[in-house]
Amino acid sequence: MTNNNSVQVSLLGLGAMGSALADALVKAGYATTVWNRSLGKADDLVAQGAQAAATAGDAVRASRLVIACLLDHASVHEVLDPLSNELAGRTLINLTTTTPAQSRELAAWAAHAGVTYLDGGIMAVPQMIGQPGASILYSGSADVFNECKPLLDLWATSTYFGEDAGLASLYDLALLAGMYVMFAGFMHGAAMVAPAGVTAGQFAAMATPWLTAMTGAFQGFAAVIDGGDYTVEGQQSLEFSNLSDLLASSSDQGISTEVVAMVQGLIQRQIDAGHGEEGFARIIESIKQPG
Amino acid sequence: MTNNNSVQVSLLGLGAMGSALADALVKAGYATTVWNRSLGKADDLVAQGAQAAATAGDAVRASRLVIACLLDHASVHEVLDPLSNELAGRTLINLTTTTPAQSRELAAWAAHAGVTYLDGGIMAVPQMIGQPGASILYSGSADVFNECKPLLDLWATSTYFGEDAGLASLYDLALLAGMYVMFAGFMHGAAMVAPAGVTAGQFAAMATPWLTAMTGAFQGFAAVIDGGDYTVEGQQSLEFSNLSDLLASSSDQGISTEVVAMVQGLIQRQIDAGHGEEGFARIIESIKQPG
Repeated sequence: MTNNNSVQVSLLGLGAMGSALADALVKAGYATTVWNRSLGKADDLVAQGAQAAATAGDAVRASRLVIACLLDHASVHEVLDPLSNELAGRTLINLTTTTPAQSRELAAWAAHAGVTYLDGGIMAVPQMIGQPGASILYSGSADVFNECKPLLDLWATSTYFGEDAGLASLYDLALLAGMYVMFAGFMHGAAMVAPAGVTAGQFAAMATPWLTAMTGAFQGFAAVIDGGDYTVEGQQSLEFSNLSDLLASSSDQGISTEVVAMVQGLIQRQIDAGHGEEGFARIIESIKQPG
Repeated sequence: MTNNNSVQVSLLGLGAMGSALADALVKAGYATTVWNRSLGKADDLVAQGAQAAATAGDAVRASRLVIACLLDHASVHEVLDPLSNELAGRTLINLTTTTPAQSRELAAWAAHAGVTYLDGGIMAVPQMIGQPGASILYSGSADVFNECKPLLDLWATSTYFGEDAGLASLYDLALLAGMYVMFAGFMHGAAMVAPAGVTAGQFAAMATPWLTAMTGAFQGFAAVIDGGDYTVEGQQSLEFSNLSDLLASSSDQGISTEVVAMVQGLIQRQIDAGHGEEGFARIIESIKQPG
């Protein structure tokens, strides 16, 4: 146990994620006060040395540093709006999942109430907290991030993006978008080979190293996009990236073509606009400019 | 140089990929005959010791093992149909990009002509041939695969899937589907953060390790899919996988929602069918059963 017992922290919300966050604080020796709307959730933490607050107001008054990990944006307002006077002069780190617009709205609310605000987006499931691979993205007050970094690093790798409180949520959602879309691509591949008697497990054994290797292409695409010139040499052209065999073979296998047709649509719009000989990275222009 | 100079190999097609394959053979000491429709492409290979054949027929007659790496399926028939008598009794390894249906058609054509046939799908760009990370998928004659494995392993990691000549192409297309869809997901994320002043390079620096880590979920999805029970405990449910924040925030950023809407569509169809509490892996059913 490190010598953190003079540092007071209050944590609001003991769902699976809030409990995991509180557990890491208690284990590291922080003087941790916890609160949850429904009773009983704090019992394990209290047994380990946490203080259970009877009300959210009691929890806020117990510490200069208040961490919220609630159900959603509406819950944050429901719990904190009546406590804006108590929160004045304190620091709020909000790890509740919110959109960029909601994070910015809370940052403005906090500024108005005299509360120093840091927003966080958790890229992990509760079991990963405190383990390698967990990542939490932050934006808002740089001072809070820097002062609290030893505490934040207990939970995950901590990355700070800037004073705009919406940035962490924006990154969070952008990375989640990449993940969900990649999952759909995996599922399409697994669905394609299934009629030939290939199990999803057999396909995953090929797809895991393959897609891992193909993430290596991102930096090359990014260099082209950031360079602003889609005609630079050495790229796979949009015309070469013809997915018609992929669509036809998906149909031959009796499966839906919608997953691949989405990509083909992005490619085709750039070809139709006369950019067929330019690089594949140009499909980002189809996304940036909705039709 | 290894002692392969008694092994005769003929290679038809000297595009970027065919040339890379031939180069690896010549460097390894195989007695290599090359042919290309247009002249001049063989000059570098001849300087290294390859024989240039004046006609495709000369190339076929020079070796018992004939490798084709041509433009497309139609080119293979155009070049080989007139040579079916010369090919009889020889072995053909076809590395031309084809669909599963085209591979099966060529296997049937070869069987009819008395040609032993192995089909291959190259998962690499020409510069990767002979380097770590290159992969070539094979199906068709197991005997040819086993006999030729030392030669095939010069090019890439060689994986054999079975006697059905269409299997390699099917795996190839299924893996390419995963890749293109993942690329679209990366582009969506990069497009989301761009209006906040985040460069594609900055996003790639986060997305590369994140998506690499998330490929770790494939085997878990596969276990659920192959187990046939989407209700097993410990999965993220379809209802929890609500992408409405992602769609709303994409719209807020002024970008197209089509990439994420594709995934949301797969999720929603399963929820609408009453499976909202089941695991995310169930989205494969939306793909397997086109609407």
